[in-house]
Amino acid sequence: MSAGWFRRRFLPRDPLPAPRPSGPHSSPVPYRRPRFLRGSSPGAADASRRPDARPVRSPARGHALPWNAGYAEVINAEKSEFNEDQAACGKLCIRRCEFGLEEDKEWLTVCPEEFLTGHYWALFDGHGGPAAAILAANTLHSCLRRQLEAVVEGVVAAQPPMHLSGCCVCPSDPQFVEEKGIRAEDLVIGALESAFQECDDVIGRELEASGQAGGCTALVAVALQGKLYVANAGDSRAILVRRDEIRPLSSEFTPETERQRIQQLAFVYPELLAGEFTRLEFPRRLKGDDLGQKVLFRDHHMSGWSYKWVEKSDLKYPLIHGQGRQARLLGTLAVSRGLGDHQLRVLDTNIQLKPFLLSIPQVTVLDVDQLALQEEDVVVMATDGLWDVLSNEQVARLVRSFLPGNRGDPHRFSELAKMLISNTQGKEDGATEEQVSYDDVSVFVIPLHSQGQGGSDH
Amino acid sequence: MSAGWFRRRFLPRDPLPAPRPSGPHSSPVPYRRPRFLRGSSPGAADASRRPDARPVRSPARGHALPWNAGYAEVINAEKSEFNEDQAACGKLCIRRCEFGLEEDKEWLTVCPEEFLTGHYWALFDGHGGPAAAILAANTLHSCLRRQLEAVVEGVVAAQPPMHLSGCCVCPSDPQFVEEKGIRAEDLVIGALESAFQECDDVIGRELEASGQAGGCTALVAVALQGKLYVANAGDSRAILVRRDEIRPLSSEFTPETERQRIQQLAFVYPELLAGEFTRLEFPRRLKGDDLGQKVLFRDHHMSGWSYKWVEKSDLKYPLIHGQGRQARLLGTLAVSRGLGDHQLRVLDTNIQLKPFLLSIPQVTVLDVDQLALQEEDVVVMATDGLWDVLSNEQVARLVRSFLPGNRGDPHRFSELAKMLISNTQGKEDGATEEQVSYDDVSVFVIPLHSQGQGGSDH
Repeated sequence: MSAGWFRRRFLPRDPLPAPRPSGPHSSPVPYRRPRFLRGSSPGAADASRRPDARPVRSPARGHALPWNAGYAEVINAEKSEFNEDQAACGKLCIRRCEFGLEEDKEWLTVCPEEFLTGHYWALFDGHGGPAAAILAANTLHSCLRRQLEAVVEGVVAAQPPMHLSGCCVCPSDPQFVEEKGIRAEDLVIGALESAFQECDDVIGRELEASGQAGGCTALVAVALQGKLYVANAGDSRAILVRRDEIRPLSSEFTPETERQRIQQLAFVYPELLAGEFTRLEFPRRLKGDDLGQKVLFRDHHMSGWSYKWVEKSDLKYPLIHGQGRQARLLGTLAVSRGLGDHQLRVLDTNIQLKPFLLSIPQVTVLDVDQLALQEEDVVVMATDGLWDVLSNEQVARLVRSFLPGNRGDPHRFSELAKMLISNTQGKEDGATEEQVSYDDVSVFVIPLHSQGQGGSDH
Repeated sequence: MSAGWFRRRFLPRDPLPAPRPSGPHSSPVPYRRPRFLRGSSPGAADASRRPDARPVRSPARGHALPWNAGYAEVINAEKSEFNEDQAACGKLCIRRCEFGLEEDKEWLTVCPEEFLTGHYWALFDGHGGPAAAILAANTLHSCLRRQLEAVVEGVVAAQPPMHLSGCCVCPSDPQFVEEKGIRAEDLVIGALESAFQECDDVIGRELEASGQAGGCTALVAVALQGKLYVANAGDSRAILVRRDEIRPLSSEFTPETERQRIQQLAFVYPELLAGEFTRLEFPRRLKGDDLGQKVLFRDHHMSGWSYKWVEKSDLKYPLIHGQGRQARLLGTLAVSRGLGDHQLRVLDTNIQLKPFLLSIPQVTVLDVDQLALQEEDVVVMATDGLWDVLSNEQVARLVRSFLPGNRGDPHRFSELAKMLISNTQGKEDGATEEQVSYDDVSVFVIPLHSQGQGGSDH
């Protein structure tokens, strides 16, 4: 993406053009559940739960996921026709690209045998239809494999070489790389960043071709060379739970957490708001009675708050509006990063959401080899439906109370995932103060101790 | 500042205009040392130091600074004619603005008596001449006082009111403010942010009027209502040193730490580079031999690294070049936030630095009242000359070894500041591995335990 591209794409001359007329469409993306659920039946609802509880699904017994990870999901309470969450996992087989001779620099061979293997778990939380999340589940791992294959020589080197070909143009090149602190893991982070962007492009093309719409968040864990990389774009979450430690492995990207980035873009390109929204943040939407008063506000450059005299333009609908779970970007979207949404517009306008959305994930690295692992150390990844109802501490408590009593069960991590979900569904007695999730919920539980043991490849 | 202003100021049509012809100038900003050094003589150089050691200055004995803080400074080793660091401290007297009646909303009185008092310590590290740092030392506290006076009714309230007048337009206004989590300290943070901007504008006007140039970093500590606010724009640093704890109270803003923000701006406004620089980061500057190779690079959206085929445009000088202390923005400047530099251009070009610089500080809040203070808890603030040579841990070790033995000396915090500086000047025996600072160095040591005791007002 170049700045010129950004301007052509998002800053056309007045008046704003209508969405492109849609030509003949290819067939729509078919709805499906994750492949690894094949052969499983929607589980019976937990007897201790309410009679109308929705059934929680998990992989069939005997069908092991990579690292013997557990998985479970539940569909939302009729918020949408389909479960808009999707999941994927499997083995990542990275082949080696071999460079040709000096005179054929652009020629390379992909060796057929795998050169480096890793594992991959991913959750996608769709909105505006299930299509984007399905495409992401079908595509992102291939994008990642391709991006990793493009740099794998650097990933396996003790230190990434300045030149991928390995030839040394300047004798002190290794020292330059060393001084910048560039390590193999930075190439994996770079590959994850590029893979999310590539996948976003694919989704944009495919949705346009099929005349469908929608977007999704993406939370991905990749195990490679003794490290676990967690890449997140959206409001799903991953945490590490150990006996004495709870460590967040991701942070959420919402209109609230990315307020300054979003306001900054509206400051630089005010035409993106088409005169319909105000960039400024106020404690609530202003109205006529506030005119001429000095009220609390924040602009893009401010972490703190100040007061300003209210003018008429401050009465417009706010670029970011609402609190916490209710916060919306342009009155429309609850997340600020993710994949898709290429055609999304504010209702009854031509104002686009996409320029404000980032497809780039934030990547954190867990050095699993350095952890002194204990048997019940797990990573819990889940869509926001879980975290809206359970805190990190509550999840950790449930994990720690469940695992020690279930050591003998090879299916225990899926049982744990099911148990976590059933704790979001409310009890039959409608216990007081208990929060209930009416959203789609999907959970992976990845045991770190048993890494590499068991788990068929997908 | 509006986007329109930014465009008019920094994005003129091709060709770029020359700097405005300078008219008749007002008299230049006179050079001076901090007012609180009056009556002090440049101290004799430490006998254990090298014979050519530069003398370290501190306030005259008997002349106490707010909170009995200590201060010391040393000029650089003939890098520039003047000491380009400046310092200021004193009492902040904030008066109350009273609102008129409902029908005269714009009428307000400033009550002559002070309403709220605080204390203020500030360090400014100048570059390109001493003028900007002197102006900042003369001005910033007045800007801050003005900004605090504009919101003081909110600062002293249990919760800042939605409307500064205190009238309640909507009955649930306090609830909206509560839900946003807006506290009195957010207004102080906002006032610090606005004060830095206002001071930057003043410096721009004054330097233009006097035909001078230059810029400076700014590190400010403000004690107000039991909290210590540390606002930083540049590469100075403040840390809290306690018996069992070292806590950073600021982080540095340099072309390296703000790489993504700076690259992002060059991506949005490529005209700012006038075709002379490349936005991309490489481990070293590329040359002809790298053409057609695949080399390590990073762009604005990347935390990780990847490889790209080298094209001719990649051989341009990098927007950010060099490592660590040597890193430079547009080959010119070692900091990415600060005050001034309105006229600064890349040598022999019309390429401006100012669009890439932020005058907004990052503000951290230390809740002093919650600290369970011990007698030797201090905040150490210093310009980069100190931190280039001593780590946080080394400074903490020196603080902890000095203070217990010097409890009886009322001047001990200045003696400590002098001792810290003399540890940057090299020993007479030229001890091995010892690093020496040839830069200006200025240090405040602020004792937290004795707050409010002693210390004449300035």
